[in-house]
Amino acid sequence: MIKIAILGYGTIGSGVVEVLRTNRESIAKRAGQEIEVKYILDLRDFPGDPMEDKVIHDYDVIADDPEIRVVVEAMGGVEPAYTFVKRALLAGKSVATSNKALVAKHGAELIAIAEEKKLNFMFEASVGGGIPIIRPLNSSLTADEIEEITGILNGTTNYMLSKMTFEGLEFDDVLKDAQAKGYAEADPTADIEGHDACRKIAILTSLVCGRQVDFEEIYTEGITKITATDIKYAKAMGRVVKLLATSRRTKDGYCAMVAPFLLSKEHPLYNVNDVFNAIFVHGNVLGDAMFYGSGAGKLPTASAVVADIVDIVKHLHTHIMVSWSSKKMGLVDVGKAQSRFFVRTDAGEEEVKAAFGDVEWIDAGVDGERGFLTASMAEEEYEKKASGLNVLHRIRAV
Amino acid sequence: MIKIAILGYGTIGSGVVEVLRTNRESIAKRAGQEIEVKYILDLRDFPGDPMEDKVIHDYDVIADDPEIRVVVEAMGGVEPAYTFVKRALLAGKSVATSNKALVAKHGAELIAIAEEKKLNFMFEASVGGGIPIIRPLNSSLTADEIEEITGILNGTTNYMLSKMTFEGLEFDDVLKDAQAKGYAEADPTADIEGHDACRKIAILTSLVCGRQVDFEEIYTEGITKITATDIKYAKAMGRVVKLLATSRRTKDGYCAMVAPFLLSKEHPLYNVNDVFNAIFVHGNVLGDAMFYGSGAGKLPTASAVVADIVDIVKHLHTHIMVSWSSKKMGLVDVGKAQSRFFVRTDAGEEEVKAAFGDVEWIDAGVDGERGFLTASMAEEEYEKKASGLNVLHRIRAV
Repeated sequence: MIKIAILGYGTIGSGVVEVLRTNRESIAKRAGQEIEVKYILDLRDFPGDPMEDKVIHDYDVIADDPEIRVVVEAMGGVEPAYTFVKRALLAGKSVATSNKALVAKHGAELIAIAEEKKLNFMFEASVGGGIPIIRPLNSSLTADEIEEITGILNGTTNYMLSKMTFEGLEFDDVLKDAQAKGYAEADPTADIEGHDACRKIAILTSLVCGRQVDFEEIYTEGITKITATDIKYAKAMGRVVKLLATSRRTKDGYCAMVAPFLLSKEHPLYNVNDVFNAIFVHGNVLGDAMFYGSGAGKLPTASAVVADIVDIVKHLHTHIMVSWSSKKMGLVDVGKAQSRFFVRTDAGEEEVKAAFGDVEWIDAGVDGERGFLTASMAEEEYEKKASGLNVLHRIRAV
Repeated sequence: MIKIAILGYGTIGSGVVEVLRTNRESIAKRAGQEIEVKYILDLRDFPGDPMEDKVIHDYDVIADDPEIRVVVEAMGGVEPAYTFVKRALLAGKSVATSNKALVAKHGAELIAIAEEKKLNFMFEASVGGGIPIIRPLNSSLTADEIEEITGILNGTTNYMLSKMTFEGLEFDDVLKDAQAKGYAEADPTADIEGHDACRKIAILTSLVCGRQVDFEEIYTEGITKITATDIKYAKAMGRVVKLLATSRRTKDGYCAMVAPFLLSKEHPLYNVNDVFNAIFVHGNVLGDAMFYGSGAGKLPTASAVVADIVDIVKHLHTHIMVSWSSKKMGLVDVGKAQSRFFVRTDAGEEEVKAAFGDVEWIDAGVDGERGFLTASMAEEEYEKKASGLNVLHRIRAV
């Protein structure tokens, strides 16, 4: 019997309790022993909850209890999660977390402490919710040099963009709908400005290259400027708008960004709709692979956290090696990133041709402007060519 | 430095050599040490090949060399692969294999020997080529009860069905094309009759339930009866024909089968075309997930084998637990399996209505017959209802 503590009794924390209860028997079989929740740390009380008597308010009780072998961090945010997790590891307890902000910021350090202490720090649920991607990267795709990893990593924005596409609605209306459905938070900034996806691609890029990639250095553009008119053009092109988080290996290093992209029908992520997430990986020997599933939600995320707990229990005295050193890796300037650009402008045809040469005109029946797709070029080249035009909006296209 | 031996220098064996050479540095970093091929066992000689001097013809040399810690089995077929692999494990060597026939038949026994000897017997490449699925099932989806696992697990037949769909060709013509392109073998029976997919779903079902599922007990139907006329009807329905290998948990146990299915646009495997494979998994807490990639081919398959070698090297003195006991698990009779049925018949409308009640008529403009889709029902119920009709062909639909 292994005793664990859960930090935070919100959506994920209560999901972990539910998964452990629902699949108690099969989980015990796979872990090799029963898993029991001894404490739940939360500021609140939960009168009437079946776990009411497990709820405590003082982290010291957990950190100082040698019976606790595993700590599940489900609070979110960098602090106090970081302080609590570090203290747990230093006290000889392994940790499973769903917290992308914590992992993006302090992952390398926490992995190093776990390694030194022969413990495990696991974070499968921090990227892609229930989709297995951290463990596959760490232990399945180890024969490859990963040349590209591109994901739809945020369910909220994917739901919103899907709804704009299928129903022709404006951004503000789908945001209200997403909030009403509980898919978007009251303050939706982290989702719609791409900050959430940015932390996730920082984690994936760090794992792919084995070094620390700072999320602050990743160029990040959200979806707030996408309009129903853009969607009309997308349809005219047979494309869809998706918020991609992407990292590509170039000869000078990795180039990462988060931005809306117009995807053609042939793109492997074209059909990923609603709150689903998917991650596309290209390895130099594997070729193309894709992982698809529920990127968020209480039970899918808790499923990934509990799988981490099972793995921790199976490896109580062994550190599972994770290649992610604290040595920092700089990124290639986003100006070097290649893509096509879809441009809306009120400039005349001749003016556009003078700037970009031959382009692919897109007729979406919008008055007072014209839309076109450029050839593939580096961002800095696009900026230079577009500098003389009055650009109403531009979206990258792949 | 770890020394390994490769059994069989065909497509996969030479792919393993190529992957180890191409990504030598990153593989050594992830494994923690260099990996060197000391022997290649093959009946043939390879004059002029860079590995020429590693080629031997006598398995005893490998089995008796204590320097060899890992044996890669890439011969295919049950014998002599089984004898060689068992002997390697008994001699204290871990094994990585891509051989679905070996794993489906003797997986449970070989895993048990590996466990007893604190070694590892790994077989990621035996299902889905380069797609990570064995390791995710074994270590990522451990919090779930898997209620369904359904895959497009054979690249040859998927290529053929895609070509029939996109080009309207007949079965015999696409088979010739697939053989010319090297996607189908001179004797294509194992692929087109579903035997290959059958062994793979037997392996996946065994892993999902933790017990031995005999492939001989899985109902298996190939694609040889699919005609250009069927594809015409499929198009009229907005569906595609795919060879699915599927296993579902029912209240009485698992029900598994391999058969062509008509998939609607909403099905997660609808868009998996050409030689690609994909595996759909539904877990009771995870919900839906899908894994997609190259299901065959020299380098993708070798990528999975080498990832297994890396994992073995990282766990030289630890057995990674795999839940697959030799205790046999019977399957639920396929007569209980539920699906819709697409039926072609030369019977009259009234006769069809008398047998099936209201059906969905499909007009594909084919003379002298009619096509219809039934409601969802058990196979045995369908058989009973269809017994009085002259059925030209029937295909399951989901």
